[in-house]
Amino acid sequence: MYLKPSARLAIYAQGEFGKGHSKTAEGVIRYARNPIAAVIDKSEAGNSVKSAVGIDCPAPIVASIEDALQHKPDALLLGTAWTGGHMPESWREDIITALENGLDVVNGLHDFLADDPKIVSVAHEHKKLLLDVRRPPDNIPVAAGLARHVKAFTVLTVGTDCNVGKMTTSLELWKEAKNRGIRAEFIATGQTGIMIAGGSGIAIDRVIGDFMAGAAEQMVVEAAKDHDLILVEGQGSLAHPGFSGVTLALMHGSAPKAMILCHKATKKWICELEDFPLPELTQLIKMSEAIVDYVSPAKVIGVAINTVGLTDDEAKAVIERARKETGLPCTDPVRFGAAQLVDAIQTAKENYK
Amino acid sequence: MYLKPSARLAIYAQGEFGKGHSKTAEGVIRYARNPIAAVIDKSEAGNSVKSAVGIDCPAPIVASIEDALQHKPDALLLGTAWTGGHMPESWREDIITALENGLDVVNGLHDFLADDPKIVSVAHEHKKLLLDVRRPPDNIPVAAGLARHVKAFTVLTVGTDCNVGKMTTSLELWKEAKNRGIRAEFIATGQTGIMIAGGSGIAIDRVIGDFMAGAAEQMVVEAAKDHDLILVEGQGSLAHPGFSGVTLALMHGSAPKAMILCHKATKKWICELEDFPLPELTQLIKMSEAIVDYVSPAKVIGVAINTVGLTDDEAKAVIERARKETGLPCTDPVRFGAAQLVDAIQTAKENYK
Repeated sequence: MYLKPSARLAIYAQGEFGKGHSKTAEGVIRYARNPIAAVIDKSEAGNSVKSAVGIDCPAPIVASIEDALQHKPDALLLGTAWTGGHMPESWREDIITALENGLDVVNGLHDFLADDPKIVSVAHEHKKLLLDVRRPPDNIPVAAGLARHVKAFTVLTVGTDCNVGKMTTSLELWKEAKNRGIRAEFIATGQTGIMIAGGSGIAIDRVIGDFMAGAAEQMVVEAAKDHDLILVEGQGSLAHPGFSGVTLALMHGSAPKAMILCHKATKKWICELEDFPLPELTQLIKMSEAIVDYVSPAKVIGVAINTVGLTDDEAKAVIERARKETGLPCTDPVRFGAAQLVDAIQTAKENYK
Repeated sequence: MYLKPSARLAIYAQGEFGKGHSKTAEGVIRYARNPIAAVIDKSEAGNSVKSAVGIDCPAPIVASIEDALQHKPDALLLGTAWTGGHMPESWREDIITALENGLDVVNGLHDFLADDPKIVSVAHEHKKLLLDVRRPPDNIPVAAGLARHVKAFTVLTVGTDCNVGKMTTSLELWKEAKNRGIRAEFIATGQTGIMIAGGSGIAIDRVIGDFMAGAAEQMVVEAAKDHDLILVEGQGSLAHPGFSGVTLALMHGSAPKAMILCHKATKKWICELEDFPLPELTQLIKMSEAIVDYVSPAKVIGVAINTVGLTDDEAKAVIERARKETGLPCTDPVRFGAAQLVDAIQTAKENYK
C-alpha cells in the first residue's frame, strides 16, 4: 500500500535542495500527484522553490521538521541521500519527530527504515507507515524474453549517463501520450519514479543481479494487458562503469520496440568521474541498437536533451546540433514539450513490423 | 571462514548427477582441493564418477546420506539446485541428518541455509558450520573504473551462453599459468568457483544491481596487489535475456585487458530457450570488444570450446572451424590443454600498451 493521492508531503532535503543531489525531491515536486506541504532545507529556508530549483511550486522552504509541521503535512518524504555509510543521527531524530507527530515516512534509499529497530518501534507505537519504496518484491523470475511478445508498443529511455533526465523524459512522454488519448502507462524502475507513480514499480538497481531483467519483464507483461503504449523509465548508462549492468538488464528485460536517448547538455563526465568522458550520441545509439537486438530489434527514434542551466537560445542551438549529428527528432521535453517525440513514437509504432 | 583443505566432501546431487544440472558437483569434483568422500545420487548409485560425468575420481556414488556417512565425510556440499520455489522436505531432512552426524554444510544456492530456523538450530546445537557461499559481503562500493589502473594483466572469460565452460576455462588457464611459474590468481564470481577457490570470491549474480561491478572491481584491485596475471571467472552472456546485466557488470567492473571467448559446441539455444539462438562467435567478439571499451580497451584473444559429448575427431573439426571463423587460437582446454591460450595471453600481455 501507498499514500493517498491527497496526502500532503513534507520533502526532506536538508542542506541539499537544488545542490545537484536532490533529484528525488525535484522529481516528486514536479510530477507527483500529491500536494507539497513544505520543503525542509535550512540552507534555502525562506527562498522559493522556483528560485532554488526552477520549478513552479507554491510550497514554502522551511528550516526544520518542526517548522514543516506548521504546514500540516501527512507524510515526510526523504528527498536526498546522505553521504557516508550510515544514516546521520540528525536524520534519525527528524524521522522520529515526524512519526511522533502523525506523519508516515517515505524512503527511497538503499537502506531501509524497516531495518532500523528504533524507527520501527516508534512507527508501530504511532501506527504510522514506513514506506521503503526500493524494497523489491519476493519471487521475481529470471527473464526469458517474454516482454518482446507483448502487443503493446514499449519505449525505453536510455542515457549517456545517470542523472540526465531519463525518468523525466518518460514522464513527459506519458503525459503527452495521455493528452492525446493514447492508453499509455509509465513503468517506474527507480525510487523517485515509484514515488511519483503512487507506489507501483520496482527499483531495478536494488534487485539481485540474476533477477533484474525479470523484474522489468514482469512489469511490462503486466502493463501490456491493458495499455497500448508502455513508457519504461531507463536506468544508468551502457557507458557507466558502475551501473551499466543495470542498464543492460533493463534493456533486455523490458524488450523495447523503440528507444529514446537522453542526454544532459552541460555534462562532460560520466557521474563526475573525470577519466570517463561522456559517450558520443551517435556511438551510444549504435551500441544501444546493437546490444538490445539480441532480444528485441529496437531503434533509437528520438533524442531528449536536458538543457537545464542554458538560455533558450543556447538550448535551441544544442538541440539543433544534436539533430544534425543524429538525424533524429531532438528536443528538451521539459522546456519545449514532448510533442515531437510522441510524434516519432507514433510513426515508429505504425512502421513496426 | 571456510572448510579446511583436507575436509572430505560428500557431494549431494540426488537424482541429478550427470543429468545436465550438476555443474556445481562436477566443478568441485574436478577442481576443488578437498578430497571427495562420496557422491550422493540414488539414480547413479554403484556406478563410477567416470561413467556418470567423465571425470576420473575414485569416490563411490551412494544412494543416501546414511550410506555416505560410511565414507567418513567432513562436510556435505549441495551440488545441484532443486526445482521449484522451496527446498524439498527430503533435502531438509538430509541436511539435518548430516549436521547431526558431525558434518558442516556448504550451500551455493540463492536460498540461504542460515535463513532456515530449523537448520540453524540443529547446526548450532551440533556446533557445525553452515556455509552459504553465495551470500555477498556488506559494504560493496559502486564501481568507478579503478580496476583498469592495476598493473596486473586481467583476463576475463566471456561466453555465448551460461553453462558453456567459463569457470572451467579460467581454472585451466590458472593451472597452466601457475605451472609456468606465473604469479597468477583465479577470481571466483560464482558459487562453484567460490567453493573451488576455498571460499574466496563473490557470487556476482547474488549482489544487488548497483554494486555488481563494484564487487568485481574490489576483487581485481585486491588480487592485483600480489599477482601479475588475474583470471576472472565470467558469468552469463551478453546475449542472454536474463543474465546479460550480470555479464556486463562483470566486464566493466573487472576491466579486463584481454578476454577469452567460451562456447559449447553442442549448444544451439541460449539456456534452452528455443527462440534464442546462440550468437555467432564473430558477432559476439565484436560486441564484447565494443562494449568493454567504455571502460577498458580489451580484445578477445582466444576461444575455448567445450567439446563434451563429441569424439576427438569431431572436437578437432569444430575447433578448426572456429579457428578459421575467428582467426584466433582455439582449443578445448579440458580435452587438449590450455597451453595455446596461455601462449596467447602472454603475447597479448607483451603487446599491451
